[in-house]
Amino acid sequence: MSNAKFKTWLHEIIFGTEPGPGRNFDIFLIVVILSSVAALFIDSVASIHERYGDLLFGVEVFFTVLFTLEYGARIYCSPNRRAYIFSFYGLIDLLATIPTYLSIFIPGAQHLLIIRVFRVLRVFRVFKLFHYMSEANVLLRSLLASRRKISVFLVSVLTVIVVFGALMYLIEGPENGFTSLPQSMYWAIVTVTTVGYGDIAPHTPLGQLVAAMAMITSYAIIAIPTGILSAELIQESQRMITNRQCDSCKKFGHEKESHYCRHCGEKLPPPQ
Amino acid sequence: MSNAKFKTWLHEIIFGTEPGPGRNFDIFLIVVILSSVAALFIDSVASIHERYGDLLFGVEVFFTVLFTLEYGARIYCSPNRRAYIFSFYGLIDLLATIPTYLSIFIPGAQHLLIIRVFRVLRVFRVFKLFHYMSEANVLLRSLLASRRKISVFLVSVLTVIVVFGALMYLIEGPENGFTSLPQSMYWAIVTVTTVGYGDIAPHTPLGQLVAAMAMITSYAIIAIPTGILSAELIQESQRMITNRQCDSCKKFGHEKESHYCRHCGEKLPPPQ
Amino acid sequence: MSNAKFKTWLHEIIFGTEPGPGRNFDIFLIVVILSSVAALFIDSVASIHERYGDLLFGVEVFFTVLFTLEYGARIYCSPNRRAYIFSFYGLIDLLATIPTYLSIFIPGAQHLLIIRVFRVLRVFRVFKLFHYMSEANVLLRSLLASRRKISVFLVSVLTVIVVFGALMYLIEGPENGFTSLPQSMYWAIVTVTTVGYGDIAPHTPLGQLVAAMAMITSYAIIAIPTGILSAELIQESQRMITNRQCDSCKKFGHEKESHYCRHCGEKLPPPQ
Amino acid sequence: MSNAKFKTWLHEIIFGTEPGPGRNFDIFLIVVILSSVAALFIDSVASIHERYGDLLFGVEVFFTVLFTLEYGARIYCSPNRRAYIFSFYGLIDLLATIPTYLSIFIPGAQHLLIIRVFRVLRVFRVFKLFHYMSEANVLLRSLLASRRKISVFLVSVLTVIVVFGALMYLIEGPENGFTSLPQSMYWAIVTVTTVGYGDIAPHTPLGQLVAAMAMITSYAIIAIPTGILSAELIQESQRMITNRQCDSCKKFGHEKESHYCRHCGEKLPPPQ
Repeated sequence: MSNAKFKTWLHEIIFGTEPGPGRNFDIFLIVVILSSVAALFIDSVASIHERYGDLLFGVEVFFTVLFTLEYGARIYCSPNRRAYIFSFYGLIDLLATIPTYLSIFIPGAQHLLIIRVFRVLRVFRVFKLFHYMSEANVLLRSLLASRRKISVFLVSVLTVIVVFGALMYLIEGPENGFTSLPQSMYWAIVTVTTVGYGDIAPHTPLGQLVAAMAMITSYAIIAIPTGILSAELIQESQRMITNRQCDSCKKFGHEKESHYCRHCGEKLPPPQ
Repeated sequence: MSNAKFKTWLHEIIFGTEPGPGRNFDIFLIVVILSSVAALFIDSVASIHERYGDLLFGVEVFFTVLFTLEYGARIYCSPNRRAYIFSFYGLIDLLATIPTYLSIFIPGAQHLLIIRVFRVLRVFRVFKLFHYMSEANVLLRSLLASRRKISVFLVSVLTVIVVFGALMYLIEGPENGFTSLPQSMYWAIVTVTTVGYGDIAPHTPLGQLVAAMAMITSYAIIAIPTGILSAELIQESQRMITNRQCDSCKKFGHEKESHYCRHCGEKLPPPQ
Repeated sequence: MSNAKFKTWLHEIIFGTEPGPGRNFDIFLIVVILSSVAALFIDSVASIHERYGDLLFGVEVFFTVLFTLEYGARIYCSPNRRAYIFSFYGLIDLLATIPTYLSIFIPGAQHLLIIRVFRVLRVFRVFKLFHYMSEANVLLRSLLASRRKISVFLVSVLTVIVVFGALMYLIEGPENGFTSLPQSMYWAIVTVTTVGYGDIAPHTPLGQLVAAMAMITSYAIIAIPTGILSAELIQESQRMITNRQCDSCKKFGHEKESHYCRHCGEKLPPPQ
Repeated sequence: MSNAKFKTWLHEIIFGTEPGPGRNFDIFLIVVILSSVAALFIDSVASIHERYGDLLFGVEVFFTVLFTLEYGARIYCSPNRRAYIFSFYGLIDLLATIPTYLSIFIPGAQHLLIIRVFRVLRVFRVFKLFHYMSEANVLLRSLLASRRKISVFLVSVLTVIVVFGALMYLIEGPENGFTSLPQSMYWAIVTVTTVGYGDIAPHTPLGQLVAAMAMITSYAIIAIPTGILSAELIQESQRMITNRQCDSCKKFGHEKESHYCRHCGEKLPPPQ
């Protein structure tokens, strides 16, 4: 096989998503990525690290070598190498290998090992495989279309947080755990998002009254983003029906589930 | 009564749902199932078990014998016995009786007793009774129609959980309760779903800042599944209106509440 | 004034809602009710009860006498006395007075005093005043129209609670706070509704994994009732537009905000 | 430059929002406001206040002088001074400067310093800049249009809170943390809004049963405001499509995303 032909063949396998070698490679890669992340998870448990630390280090080195080879192959067969290296996935691919090497050669770089967890982001490539991107696009388009409404909502939430956080700092004070303004803001966020750890909670009657008001307010506010997104998604899906056109009779307005034109009976193009 | 006739008669009673013996049997069965589960619940309280353990064991044996007889009758009158035994409900029916026998004959099988709780799943048969299945079907159809969007959402949530969990493990470390990566993921799930037990909570200012960001993110994310399902349910109910046809004038587009055709006045078929 | 005339005049004032004496009486009543409930609230704080208990008891007796007079007047001027006495509001009106008398004459009836809190339900009468009932009706109609879907949802939630509660009882056991099946169900409800007190929380890794699964499940489930109700409310408001008819040209399809028919320009009847 | 011209020029800069000096001034102002609030936050942390308190006091004085100059300039160049001074933003502008002066001249006025936090409200002026007001208006209009439904919802929630709070006070009593009716109401609000601190939690089996019922109820209730707002937002956006008119052919019904009339091809006016 010539060099150019080999490159094309390799590119097909590594970057391709068609059924056959391309898809098999992708599935194999996902298994390897998830295994390497699982090893990371297990190794972070102290009792396991003590007993199987050496074994898991060997597994880690094996995976790193594999990822290094894959990274090399991806650079080798890319038509535009610079574009790949500086792309989002190119950087994620690099970050999947570097921490292990650094931790071997630089003794103090143990903390960097956690970066390997972001290997999990590589799994997102799989979305290409199953046509999930179009669904993700609908969601993203809806979020983008309502970005202004969401900004207004976020600013309102932040104002509520600042106002209630400052009030509670004034009312409860350091003796009840509201030691500083940032700490009060932390309490306000924990409360308004209804997480409610209870590590900081109001103790004075007035503080409990103000906290209760903050909760009722947040209860009303939580309806806003859901309402915004519901309205947008409904319009988005109605727009898809309105804009779907029959290739044959050129008439518009076909449901997502329709396979044939309801006017002339011809096969419809798939919904975008 | 001949053997075949008796079988048909028994089948009518046990599997039938029409008003009369079939429905009465179903209602009687639900009462028995709920009573047996109630006995289980009460027996699991230590102080009650000490005083009334023997009485409740007798009650349990009584219910088990009843369920065994019912299971036998179901097998006996099924036209296709193999199909019944290996069906979902067939297995649930078997699991309702076996644990008690095992706990009598095998001393160490006490833990299996908890399986009896799943008897409660048998109550689902009652859905046949009240035509609730069509409503459940609408919900299931909507969930299925949006399964891709929901997958995209779940993958996004899992990514948020992994990213924030790993960050908190790095920032807070074992001294603040984030003892391992799985433990950090547990914290992230407790936080992102807004459950917020508070058994693990950030103690460092940076950790609290990152936790606050995770909460705000989860606040935006919680809007997504609701929006998806609302949009789908609205489309589903509009589709039901659009597709409902009058038998007489053959015109489409009748509301769920309509009983007569608004074009020709004839009685409409019930909505699917 | 004759007796019959006096009765009609009193009925107008007490039961009427028109601007003038009827409305003024209602507003005065609400102030009295809320004051009496506020006195109850304040009196339940131990330190205030010690210092001002006697004063607040006097206030309570005053309010009770007032409510007794009002109750008598309501009976007196009702056209159908029996119907009033056994109506929902008739019983609530009676319950507003009885506990105080009982606590005076029967020494052990202190616990009954809390019933007076339900006086707050009398405030609901005010809804008649401001035409809020039609809005409440839209909400109730939507809830009723989706009662089957909501039943299916509640049964699903209860099944999730029973299954996860039983699993956690098996996994965590009494040593981690899951002392009985009812206690485990309580934990499951606290978790699935995302309240998350943290008074009972999983301690074993497997328990935390199962709890995490319960949370993710509840996250998906919470979307269902919102989706159901949104879809129903949207249809309800579209139905109101579709069904609103012009009295003059008899054409249908007018928006809630429209005051004049868009076909003939005549004044429209108000939306129902 | 004449006095009148200088005033107009200053007004343009300070109150104007056009690209150029007006917008640059606004952006500069936001940076200053956020910096001054950040200084406030940092200063409230005890350990930082001890070490850098004097430096941060200097920073604070600097910002206060800046805000005072700005406030003076705003009064100076306002066409209607009285209207500005008593407007919402006029009062906020005044409140941004006063606390610092008071804390210098009156020794006991330290607590007033927290008022400076509300400087953050001045940032809202920025909304004029980026045309976000129309989005905020859509949200406000939807909230206003559904204010009656939301009132009905809030009254229902308050009733649920009063009923469950009173029940828990009766059942659990002071020995389990439900020391008074207001305290029980606080618990009920923490629970119904699903915040769930866990500072007060039921300990008796009956209390846990009632609490579980409160949680299931709140689970159903949380769907209501979201449903109301979703329905309103969808109608609002459909109304905007229905009412958008082409200037050329006068036909109605154009989507928010459309830039040209779909009937005659002329450019459409922007959506309101």
